[in-house]
Amino acid sequence: MELQDVIRLRRMVRRFTPEPVSPESLDRILANAVRGPSAGFSQGQAFLVLTGADLAAFWAVAGEAVSPTAQTAPLVIVPMSSKRVYLDRYALPDKGWTDRDERRWPVPFWHIDTGMAALLILLTVVDEGLGAVYFGIVPEAVAGFRARFGIPDDHEPIGAIAIGHDAEDGKRDLRARRRPLADLVHYGKW
Amino acid sequence: MELQDVIRLRRMVRRFTPEPVSPESLDRILANAVRGPSAGFSQGQAFLVLTGADLAAFWAVAGEAVSPTAQTAPLVIVPMSSKRVYLDRYALPDKGWTDRDERRWPVPFWHIDTGMAALLILLTVVDEGLGAVYFGIVPEAVAGFRARFGIPDDHEPIGAIAIGHDAEDGKRDLRARRRPLADLVHYGKW
Repeated sequence: MELQDVIRLRRMVRRFTPEPVSPESLDRILANAVRGPSAGFSQGQAFLVLTGADLAAFWAVAGEAVSPTAQTAPLVIVPMSSKRVYLDRYALPDKGWTDRDERRWPVPFWHIDTGMAALLILLTVVDEGLGAVYFGIVPEAVAGFRARFGIPDDHEPIGAIAIGHDAEDGKRDLRARRRPLADLVHYGKW
Repeated sequence: MELQDVIRLRRMVRRFTPEPVSPESLDRILANAVRGPSAGFSQGQAFLVLTGADLAAFWAVAGEAVSPTAQTAPLVIVPMSSKRVYLDRYALPDKGWTDRDERRWPVPFWHIDTGMAALLILLTVVDEGLGAVYFGIVPEAVAGFRARFGIPDDHEPIGAIAIGHDAEDGKRDLRARRRPLADLVHYGKW
């Protein structure tokens, strides 16, 4: 699909058919997830892929604030950031930040880059004819999520993406709530 | 261009021809930048667009750690995040977080969503036949950047994107440094 069509068609989908996501679609989604940029090519991302019986365990720990219909999705991917990987990368000789001082980082590029990976997942989902919703894992659920799925302390989930075949009959139209471009764009000066 | 081709061709470009970016390309880049998702449709993003004489002022405050060839780009876009806009959005009745307590946020979705906007810029750049490099604004430069361009305290730059016509003769090949997919993806459990 053309990039412009993918961007135009992308929206959050919260209701899915029971049809599974094909292994081919999953493989392509994951292959694209790691094709985004990362500061210093740190690649401090990881992805937990959940299907089948693991999904019930996931929703038991992380489902409280998530729409029940979204919880019928046949696939969940949890993108994770690792600040540690970025600090390791920038301690190498070509960068030289051997003090690993976090104040060198103006913003958390580990999260920003993982957000880009999440968007690559959402765009590829559309290109595969699927639907998805990206949602947060509330702070109270993170410890339970880590314990159940063996997530190391140096990786942090930035939310989760439920993926499946779109079963929404109508499309939510957010156009009325869209902020005008002229409010968000500033030419030359704020 | 097909999404898959855009993802495949996207890479950081650090050398540009003197040719300007057309107004049509710039308009499309900005229109797509605001088509990404945002938590609660908060849309807490803003974009500073710099061309012409403003570029010299930008590089004077923010250029120290940036490749000199990248500083010849005819266009710079600075994507910015506003936590304040997200807290305002989630204080509305349908969310109800009237205490504006930041501990409710497991990760900084304002930066993550702005990262997605930055990736939409980078992808559209490729689709327009242009090249771009995304780089950080070092912490020591942020105050000078804010002062020169009138950036309000409640908006934070997440870096900047220099855009132009690609003048690199060879392509840097990062494949040897790419982490294997099997190291980054975990099925069912870490």
